Parts: sequence; structure tokens; C-alpha cells
Amino acid sequence: MTTEQRTFAVLVDNEPGVLARVVGLFAGRGYNISSLTVTEVDHELGLSRITLETSGTPIVLEHVKNLLQRLVPVHSVADLTSFGPSVRRELALLKVSGVDKNRVESLRIADIFKAEVVDAGLEHFIFQIHGEPEHIDRFVDLMRQLGMVDISRTGVAAISRGPEVLLK
Amino acid sequence: MTTEQRTFAVLVDNEPGVLARVVGLFAGRGYNISSLTVTEVDHELGLSRITLETSGTPIVLEHVKNLLQRLVPVHSVADLTSFGPSVRRELALLKVSGVDKNRVESLRIADIFKAEVVDAGLEHFIFQIHGEPEHIDRFVDLMRQLGMVDISRTGVAAISRGPEVLLK
Repeated sequence: MTTEQRTFAVLVDNEPGVLARVVGLFAGRGYNISSLTVTEVDHELGLSRITLETSGTPIVLEHVKNLLQRLVPVHSVADLTSFGPSVRRELALLKVSGVDKNRVESLRIADIFKAEVVDAGLEHFIFQIHGEPEHIDRFVDLMRQLGMVDISRTGVAAISRGPEVLLK
Repeated sequence: MTTEQRTFAVLVDNEPGVLARVVGLFAGRGYNISSLTVTEVDHELGLSRITLETSGTPIVLEHVKNLLQRLVPVHSVADLTSFGPSVRRELALLKVSGVDKNRVESLRIADIFKAEVVDAGLEHFIFQIHGEPEHIDRFVDLMRQLGMVDISRTGVAAISRGPEVLLK
């Protein structure tokens, strides 16, 4: 059976242990989370929104959705993929060390990928890049070859296109 | 005792359940995680980097660091704060519904905050913004008053300024 990728938006109570339960649900079954981000949505109501990307067969994905919906602190689960196209964005910071040719080449590539230099020394740059996660993947692959020594990526923020309100 | 904020970078084996153990360590003790992001650092070596922001008294923070260091799949823990200034960046997507004055005002504010429109309809915009998390906080506060109906934030990516390599 083919493996599909899904993006779920999960509205949860913002209380200690919620993240541990959601993550544990996946870990306990050996299901994979390729990206997970958390946002406080409403401080007064104490609500947070977890955006997570996972992949699996359609049956596994349906199972995951049902399990999430049954977790106690979960208010609602929306499958972003089912709402048509969505906006997916990620940000990354990369530290690249190098001299001479590699240094020049890293700046050239950064320019093409619209990455920005946010810190520079005589033998290093820190680049900031944002865009679709696949765009960042390609940039990271190239920077690995040019002396990348540290990286921090945020994971994916996602929101459905169009006026719908997913989570209430 | 005063509460301080810390940013930790944690190098871990990229295996199922690692995230659950790290998050569980905090949840079990009622310690707070204000932001958590995960990056695959090296696919061949199977290493990931968890960047997490937490706050507490100096004693609690020292305790957290020790607990993290003793977790089995953890290779190393670096306190980014102790390396001097670091680059901290986050990205957010916001859906704002509105007509007339609110609609015009939301565009005006977005312009000031250097947020970008990534989707638009007759009664909604999707804005993308990135920068320091405090910059995003201020933008979100304003957009809440102008009809924000959905939000997804990534959490903080962070890297030390200067040429040091934190995690080996």
C-alpha cells in the first residue's frame, strides 16, 4: 500500500503533559512524526495548536487521527490535507565555516535560495532561510558540502488556504 | 529567586521515542517548555538536534540540564545562553478575516512588521512573518484585535553567534 504524507492541526488544552501524551501516542506505536510545532492559540482559554506532519498508509493515518481525537486534552483534529492546498512554511538557521572558494560559493548559493546572512565572521556565516520545507532541504544538502557545522530548523507551520476556520 | 529563560541545544539519537522521553522529563516534573523544535542533523549518523526554551530558577535549570545529559539517547547538551548572544528566529502564519477598516488596517500593520501576504481572498489574508519570537508576539497581539481566526507558529530555531561548534 502506498505511503502518504499528512498534516494534522490539533487543538489541545495548554496544560503540562499534553505534548508528552501526543508524542507518546506516536512513539508507543512506532509511528513517525516528521515535524511537530506548537503554538499557544488563546492564552485566556488556555488553548494550544499542535501542527504535526506524519506519513503512513491510509489505514494507519486514519488510525492516528482517531487516536488523537480520543486523547483527553484534545478538542479537535483537522486533517489539513483534506482541505485542499495549504500553506506550509519552515525556517532554518545554518552555520557554515569555510575559507576561499567554499566561502564564496556558500554566499552565491545563499543568494540563489534567497537566504539571508544574519551573522558573519572571518571564517563563518550564519544563514537564515525560510520557505517550503523541501526548499530548505535542498539548501541544506548544498551547505553540507560547503562546510555546514551547525543547523537548527523549526519544523513546519501550516495553515489552510481560503477563508475556512479549521479549529473551533 | 528570579526566573531565567534558557535555550538548550540537545544532540540526540534520531530514534522513535526520543522526543517522548525528552518531553516526558519536563512534563513529569511540571517543568515548562515554552518552545521546542527538532532538526535531523545527520541522516547517516542518525543524529537530531532538539532546540528547547525553558524557564525557571537557576537551580531548576541546572537540574534540567543534568537530567537531559543523563538521558540515554542524548549525546550532548549545550546551554546556548552561556555562549553569549545567539540568533533566535521563529516563523508564523496567521489567517485574518475582516472587511472594510479592519482589512485595511491589517495590511498596514503587516507592512510595518515586514509580514508578507501569502494568500488572499475577498474577506481574508494569510500573513507570513518571521523574526525574533518577541517581534512575532507583538504582531499576533495586534492581529487578534483585527480578526485573526487561525495561527500556526513554528517555535524557536537558535544558533550561537560566532564560529564555535556547539555540538559534536
